[in-house]
Amino acid sequence: MHLYPVQDRTVVVVDIFRATSCMVTAFAHGVESITPFANLDACRSMKAKGYITSGERDGKKVEGFDKGNSPFEYMGPDIAGRKIAFTTTNGTQAIEKAKGASKIVVGSFLNLTAVTRYLLLNEHNILVVCAGWKGKVNQEDTIFAGALVEKLKDYLDPDCDAPVMAQRLYREARTDMVDYLKDSSHVRRLARLGIQKDIGFCLTPDQYPILPVLKDGILTVR
Amino acid sequence: MHLYPVQDRTVVVVDIFRATSCMVTAFAHGVESITPFANLDACRSMKAKGYITSGERDGKKVEGFDKGNSPFEYMGPDIAGRKIAFTTTNGTQAIEKAKGASKIVVGSFLNLTAVTRYLLLNEHNILVVCAGWKGKVNQEDTIFAGALVEKLKDYLDPDCDAPVMAQRLYREARTDMVDYLKDSSHVRRLARLGIQKDIGFCLTPDQYPILPVLKDGILTVR
Repeated sequence: MHLYPVQDRTVVVVDIFRATSCMVTAFAHGVESITPFANLDACRSMKAKGYITSGERDGKKVEGFDKGNSPFEYMGPDIAGRKIAFTTTNGTQAIEKAKGASKIVVGSFLNLTAVTRYLLLNEHNILVVCAGWKGKVNQEDTIFAGALVEKLKDYLDPDCDAPVMAQRLYREARTDMVDYLKDSSHVRRLARLGIQKDIGFCLTPDQYPILPVLKDGILTVR
Repeated sequence: MHLYPVQDRTVVVVDIFRATSCMVTAFAHGVESITPFANLDACRSMKAKGYITSGERDGKKVEGFDKGNSPFEYMGPDIAGRKIAFTTTNGTQAIEKAKGASKIVVGSFLNLTAVTRYLLLNEHNILVVCAGWKGKVNQEDTIFAGALVEKLKDYLDPDCDAPVMAQRLYREARTDMVDYLKDSSHVRRLARLGIQKDIGFCLTPDQYPILPVLKDGILTVR
């Protein structure tokens, strides 16, 4: 990440399994705001201020938190109009690292077209921050980045080889992403946790025409 | 690189365009040893000790050095029995970062099968260090890593998603690597320098049954 300055960039933060997929789903179901926390205790302390506390560490819901990291937890009427404090192993850390960018938006397959439309109209260069897994690259976030490159290819040029490789992988993956990702380290990790249903959902493009945008440390929907 | 400890690993250092391709070519033409230097001035000072000084910065031969970074400079009778001091933008820096590993060997398409045979028989876990370009990932080194994963797939398991993605890219690339890489940032950079011939040569597998191994900071052939 230190090789890619965020200044004067529009940053798309991506954590397909499952932080950014959860965030998009939550906004689609009426959440007022989501405040991302890199730190677990800072997130926990928000419960006293009336927030729903959400998040995971190592793929599992945090003890004492209201909600975990499955998008299916963010579809009920209980979240409408509420504020969420959110922390995850990778996704909220990626948002933290993106701070200082001109714009920060949340991307997932669930809002792929909404992100693409926004990027087509924005005036900045684009940096897609793939949260990965504890600093390492992963397939699902890379493939999402590749989907953006593919959709924007007639309008924008890649700045280095990473987007080119992501695009190539997406083109190969897109006909059946669930099958393509079955050897992904994260998919195997999630499968052990018994949440295969989440995987299929998080890989379904364009469920919600929603674009969460970070402003003053808080995500809201435009 | 800090996410992948080198201790107790066999490290394969890769800089296809062109440092490791040059090194393999030089050994195939009788060089006695190659001492890699991350620092330019330290490399330059070796000329007084009778070394051939070799290297590049930003793809161009260094002023005052004997040789640059084209494999075709390492095919003549002038290098047989000589010692080389070598510094490059990415390749020799990668060797420097790999120090502390159990074994460090030099990989390129030119000695692909020699590297593969060595890895099949070695007792350590394997880390392939792709030199990339100034810290960023590039296509050609990634595809070489993927070639190793493909050749070793019946014997070894990938530890994370990076080797899986490299393998997928190699499988797509292998039928015509020169064509596949024509949109690579490095190929475009080299093409501007007028060295297209190097590209084709560096992508030709199995020209030399040579395995350079680093010991006490010096590369020799087993």
